[in-house]
Amino acid sequence: MTFAMDCAALTQFLASDFAQVADMFEVLEVTEAGLRVRLIVNDSHLRPGGTVSGPTMFALADVSVYLAILSRIGPKALAVTTNCSIDFMRKPAAGCDLICDVRLLKVGRVLAVADCLITSVGQGDPVARASMTYSIPPK
Amino acid sequence: MTFAMDCAALTQFLASDFAQVADMFEVLEVTEAGLRVRLIVNDSHLRPGGTVSGPTMFALADVSVYLAILSRIGPKALAVTTNCSIDFMRKPAAGCDLICDVRLLKVGRVLAVADCLITSVGQGDPVARASMTYSIPPK
Amino acid sequence: MTFAMDCAALTQFLASDFAQVADMFEVLEVTEAGLRVRLIVNDSHLRPGGTVSGPTMFALADVSVYLAILSRIGPKALAVTTNCSIDFMRKPAAGCDLICDVRLLKVGRVLAVADCLITSVGQGDPVARASMTYSIPPK
Amino acid sequence: MTFAMDCAALTQFLASDFAQVADMFEVLEVTEAGLRVRLIVNDSHLRPGGTVSGPTMFALADVSVYLAILSRIGPKALAVTTNCSIDFMRKPAAGCDLICDVRLLKVGRVLAVADCLITSVGQGDPVARASMTYSIPPK
Repeated sequence: MTFAMDCAALTQFLASDFAQVADMFEVLEVTEAGLRVRLIVNDSHLRPGGTVSGPTMFALADVSVYLAILSRIGPKALAVTTNCSIDFMRKPAAGCDLICDVRLLKVGRVLAVADCLITSVGQGDPVARASMTYSIPPK
Repeated sequence: MTFAMDCAALTQFLASDFAQVADMFEVLEVTEAGLRVRLIVNDSHLRPGGTVSGPTMFALADVSVYLAILSRIGPKALAVTTNCSIDFMRKPAAGCDLICDVRLLKVGRVLAVADCLITSVGQGDPVARASMTYSIPPK
Repeated sequence: MTFAMDCAALTQFLASDFAQVADMFEVLEVTEAGLRVRLIVNDSHLRPGGTVSGPTMFALADVSVYLAILSRIGPKALAVTTNCSIDFMRKPAAGCDLICDVRLLKVGRVLAVADCLITSVGQGDPVARASMTYSIPPK
Repeated sequence: MTFAMDCAALTQFLASDFAQVADMFEVLEVTEAGLRVRLIVNDSHLRPGGTVSGPTMFALADVSVYLAILSRIGPKALAVTTNCSIDFMRKPAAGCDLICDVRLLKVGRVLAVADCLITSVGQGDPVARASMTYSIPPK
């Protein structure tokens, strides 16, 4: 399987087009199912108790699905999130990086749909799951 | 892995406690990840064009997640759906049974969370995905 | 404010294009905010205990939002549900009709978004809320 | 109607318990329906083009619903978000503060459910809507 953008291309895109948040994320792998991204935790992501905040997990899911879509359709498109449903299931491990595994379910002409599981590095049970819809603008 | 209820027990539970809808569903398999259920399509499930209606797919996801939870905690509990987020991604194949694959993500003391993929029998791409939360009443 | 379809036109559309379910629903009012629909409960909608089932409430929300969109854009369009997020908050009153109040939030070129509150007739607190996205096909 | 916490109490709670983000938010009003909060936009919230980012809108919805619940049950509880479904409907106006209007739908013993509308200050159409469930721990 070949991809429109690989790990290196996505990393470079993140650095150039999302400079503000690029150092939060490491694109680990473009897979047949989707993509894997690591959140590199720093103090600004943490809530009292040392666990990663909900908005930070939302940001991780959002960026990961976006990159997964770009890995299929390339950097030209200006896709925008239209819907996200996210379930927070367990407290993340304190001060621990998170892994987001994206599964692309549909990359259509107008809409793309994916879901993802977020886990604390080195732990089994997922801390959150999210499903997201992106609208893909006409060429 | 042993289960609180296996295929036969869940099928019998469906027949006794949900007689109205029991003949719509066939419990195919209790799995380590969750459960697999088949929707046996009849005319009352179809929309103009011969495809399965949205409410029928919702019912399939709802029952399947419910049975998956019971397979872990047994028939005593009176769990109720508190949230469902469902994405309809493709038209189901006309007049074709559907398969629902449930993945249990959390079976906690108070809440259970699962997601599922729905596919037309014999077809690759999913027609819908859903995530559901059930509230488990205190003993 | 004028509408592309009023109560009478929507009722007729329901009877001709959704004959299977038309007698479940009564279009009560097209409003500036959206639409109001009544679910006329019968035995097939009920779960053990006499309360309306989740899939029936989903069907009510789905049809109501659909009709609300048609009240704005007319009967030509073949809009399809792409996402629904629904929260079940209280048990409906036994054997009681339900009212669904739709609030249209966006009727765009490609997507329409609405939410709705479902209450048991004559009761204050909502039994469910739902938000739905419809995809509107290009002309 | 009296509240467990009013504007001043919620503002003080935010400053003491969520110091990291307290200066992002201004609690405008505790209402019979829920609560109104203002997001005071700064550069860190903006995406290329000058519009507020999705994660920032998620954070606004999350904090606003949390404060709305506390306005009813007081500061003791350690409520946690379990589910959020959010629809992004329009681009926020560039560099413009956002208003979040929360409507509490259920404040139960175990779960609280609310939805909210987010608008750019001085503009009519909502930019986003969200529904959220919080789990309320036993006393």
